[in-house]
This record gives sequence, C-alpha cells and structure tokens, in this order.
Amino acid sequence: MSIQYILELSGTGFFALSGALAANEKSKPDWFGVTFIGFITSIGGGSIRDMLLGSYPLSWVADINRMYIIISAIVFSSVFYNLLKKQRKLFFIFDSLGIAMFTILGTEKALLFHVNPIIAAIMGMFTAIMGGVMRDVLTNEIPVVFRKEIYATACLAGAAFYMMLNALHINREICLIFSVLVIIAIRIVAVKYNLSLPQFKRDE
Amino acid sequence: MSIQYILELSGTGFFALSGALAANEKSKPDWFGVTFIGFITSIGGGSIRDMLLGSYPLSWVADINRMYIIISAIVFSSVFYNLLKKQRKLFFIFDSLGIAMFTILGTEKALLFHVNPIIAAIMGMFTAIMGGVMRDVLTNEIPVVFRKEIYATACLAGAAFYMMLNALHINREICLIFSVLVIIAIRIVAVKYNLSLPQFKRDE
Amino acid sequence: MSIQYILELSGTGFFALSGALAANEKSKPDWFGVTFIGFITSIGGGSIRDMLLGSYPLSWVADINRMYIIISAIVFSSVFYNLLKKQRKLFFIFDSLGIAMFTILGTEKALLFHVNPIIAAIMGMFTAIMGGVMRDVLTNEIPVVFRKEIYATACLAGAAFYMMLNALHINREICLIFSVLVIIAIRIVAVKYNLSLPQFKRDE
Repeated sequence: MSIQYILELSGTGFFALSGALAANEKSKPDWFGVTFIGFITSIGGGSIRDMLLGSYPLSWVADINRMYIIISAIVFSSVFYNLLKKQRKLFFIFDSLGIAMFTILGTEKALLFHVNPIIAAIMGMFTAIMGGVMRDVLTNEIPVVFRKEIYATACLAGAAFYMMLNALHINREICLIFSVLVIIAIRIVAVKYNLSLPQFKRDE
Repeated sequence: MSIQYILELSGTGFFALSGALAANEKSKPDWFGVTFIGFITSIGGGSIRDMLLGSYPLSWVADINRMYIIISAIVFSSVFYNLLKKQRKLFFIFDSLGIAMFTILGTEKALLFHVNPIIAAIMGMFTAIMGGVMRDVLTNEIPVVFRKEIYATACLAGAAFYMMLNALHINREICLIFSVLVIIAIRIVAVKYNLSLPQFKRDE
Repeated sequence: MSIQYILELSGTGFFALSGALAANEKSKPDWFGVTFIGFITSIGGGSIRDMLLGSYPLSWVADINRMYIIISAIVFSSVFYNLLKKQRKLFFIFDSLGIAMFTILGTEKALLFHVNPIIAAIMGMFTAIMGGVMRDVLTNEIPVVFRKEIYATACLAGAAFYMMLNALHINREICLIFSVLVIIAIRIVAVKYNLSLPQFKRDE
C-alpha cells in the first residue's frame, strides 16, 4: 500500500465523517439520510471530476475499500458524536488536510488526460469542493463555499503551485507535500487573520 | 417484447406520473415545468447509474418508447388529476412496484460491469431513488428519502436478497420476482407499523 | 475561425455574464462564488448534454479559449456592473441570442450520435437551459424556467424547425440562421403579449 493510497483513504473517511456531522446538524435526517449525505460528500467531488473527464471506472466503483472506510467513518461519527462536535480545531485540521490532498490528487489525475493546466487546477478544486457543494444542495442550503474564507481559492493556488514545481522536474513526492502545505498554510492564515475574498458588487 | 421490458416501461410511466403530481403539488409550475420534473423523476435514477458506470448509450437516449410513455403518463396525469389525487392507496402500490422493479433491474445492470455486490446494491438503490431526489432538489425541498419510512433501506435489502438468490444459481425470473416482493413487503410492513430508521443523533 | 465558433464563444461569454449578475443579485456571494456560478451557468448545459451522450472530451475541457472568455466576461460584469443592471432590454436580446444558438448547436451535436429527433430536440433544449437550472439550484431558488414565459418551449420549437429544414436538405447555414430567428421571434412575441404556458392543474 503506497503512501498516496493511505492518504486518499484517509481523505475519503474524513470527508464522510464531516459530511455526516454536517448533515445531522442541518436537517436531522434518519440514519439512511446521514449515511447517504456522508457518502455523497465523500465521493461526490471525485465522481464529478471523473465524469467530466470521462475517466471510467470511477475510483469508488472499482475499489470497495473506499466504501468500507466510508461506512466505518459514519459509524465512528455516531459513536463519538458528542465528543466530535466539540473538537472544532481538530476538525479544521482534518478538513484542511482532506481538501489539500483531494486537490492535488485531482489535479494529477486531470493532467493524465493532457488537459490545459487551468483545466487541471479546476478539476483539482472540483475534487476538493464538489462533495461539499452537493451536501449543501441536498440539505437545501446555499453552498458554504460561496461565502467562506479563502477556501476554494486556496485549492486553486495549491494546484498552480503543484504544477509549477512539476514543471521544474522536482521529485513527485516533494511536489505533493509542498503543495499540500501551501493549501493548508493559506487556509490557516485566512482563518487567523479573518481574510476573505471581497464581495462581488453591492447594488448602489 | 419481453416481460422485463413491459415492466421497465410501466415503471418509467409510473415514475413520470408520480413526479408530475408531486411537482404540481409543491410549486405550481406551468405545463413545461411539470413535464420537465416528471421526465427527470422518471429517467433521473437510471441516468445517474449509467453515468456512474460509464454505460452508454443511456436507455432513454437509445429507446424512444420511453419518451412516448413519459409523455402519455403526463397527459394522463393531467386528465385524471383530481381522481388520481384521491387514490393514495393505489399510489402507494404503484410507487412500491416502481421502486422495487427499478432497484432489481439497476442491480442487474451494475453486475454486468463486474462490480462488487455492495456497489451493485448501491447502484440498484440509486436507480430507484435518485429520480425522486432530483425532483425534490428541483422543487427546493429536502429529499423526502432522508426522512421517510424504511424506503431506500428496503431497496438495499431487496438488492442484497436478489444477489443471494442469484449466487444460488436460481432461475433469473424467480430471483427477480422474489426480490421485488421482498422490497414491497418491507415497505408495507414499515408503513403499517409506522416503522422508520432511528434518527442519527440528537444534540445534547 | 468559423462563424459558428465565434457564435459559440459569444454564447459562452454571455451566459457567464448573465450567470454572474444573477448570482450576485440573489445571494451576495464573494468573488469566488460569483465566478463559480457564472462558470456553471455558462458550461453547465453543454456539459450535461455531453455527459448524457457520452461525448468526450467535453468542449470546455478540450478548448481553453472558452475559459478565457468566461473569465473575461466575469471581470467585465464586475467593471460595468451598475451599467449592466440597467440594460434590461439589451440583456433580453443577448439572452435570447444565447439560448437560441445553444439550442441549435446542441441539437446538431446530438444528431451526430444518430439519436431520435425528439431526443435531439431535448438535448438542444438541455444545452440552452440546464446551466440556468443549475445556477438556480445552487442559489437555492426554484428554477425560473419552470414558470417563465414560453422559454424552454421556444427552444423545443426552434429545434424542431431546424430538423424540419434539415430534412429538406437546405444549406446548413440557412437552417441555422432561420431556426435561431424562430426561437428569438417566439420569445419576443411571448414577452410582448405576456404569453405563458397554462398552469398544470389547480387543486379543486
């Protein structure tokens, strides 16, 4: 088992867990609803990327381990529900790790299809955020990504950084680690100093 | 025309009909809106399954009969609107038949792609419920499947039962009929005794 | 550069612009949110058509010019925001041109896959309206297309007209121009005389 695979599975599990908690907070669905939304949050971003690229089979369809991780994560989130709700800081770290990993792995996958770097960065960002967008649509909320601190923008910056390092023929593992760190660093700075993108326009 | 094909077309028609009635109840759209939502309710689940599996062409794209059935169902639902609104029991039976058929046929199709049985059951359930999920998202409602009596869970159980019978090399028609009956039986019991899955967690 | 390509790029740009303005009006997202929604409005319809047909690669994935046009359109909509908000009439013309072009080009693309004419007309209409439907779902609104004056219906009529001319072996450019004009004419008449499709059914 490669390090990349372990990181992918961890990202999958964490996204399922955060999806389940968010779903329960918002609309109090039953066990099926929570599991369904956790599942979609977890595999939604990668599925959209793969369907846009025409990359078949989808990873969760081909690799059953991801399903085991998702189910375990949801059971775990039920058992430790009240404990987990209080760990806002821990959550932030896991979430940042998840989106950072998913962004870079998504960008790499898109590059296998020889797309333009801009498209590859968008595919990386989609991998990271689209699960959450679908979770918000299903729970009837305006996607949080449209308003949150520099979130998706950090993904795009990390993807660009990864491709820059890549173009310099730097060792893949180093590219990967450094661009993940860039995404996490941007998020930490954004939250610490309460940075956000400016609002588009106010009506006068 | 095989019995399976007749059952598939009936399921398609009934889903269009129930989608049209539900759409009209919720947001009073015009004729186009009702037709559009009926259409999505009917072909949405199968389309998502096929796009997730990479199974082209999609059945409604390749077979125009489905479109004729959908259009007929929507005209029918308009003509007999007030009559149909009162037939809650009849509706429940048709709806149960529809989801049961779609679940088993969707599971069968996924198995053709040599996926893991868990994935096949999920694809079967998606075939049955995703049209309704899309209908609810389009009419700006939280999907009813997240709260309803044992609905999607019955699909998963039926799919599992189908694969179990299948593994015993039992005749396909018999597998099909018995697993459809299992799904319908679970739903009837759930409604009669007001069973539902437990809520995930309450905040303390 | 063919005339068709120029028209396609113009349609792409205009849809991004109108998506950005609509997004900002509704939920005041930040710059990322507006850009994201403008992007989805612009490429959503064509992407859904291509994923339903299994036509890979998607046009915006293969052709980076579309991305440049989208980004330019969003910057443009920010700079001239207050000016653009007042130009309702200009908007209506651009919007009509956009949906008309997208309908006919989408219908043409579907015909390359040898689908039934009804399916081709639906694919054309999807190309024109699905970006807007996704924009409305993301901003938590019931899709405007379900209630608006003869909008999607005009697309279907134009697609049918295009295929009729086509069947008469008339020169492609002429087919294209005339069916675009048919769609625009229907919309102008519908708005001028306040025509709309009848509501489906009222409960008695």
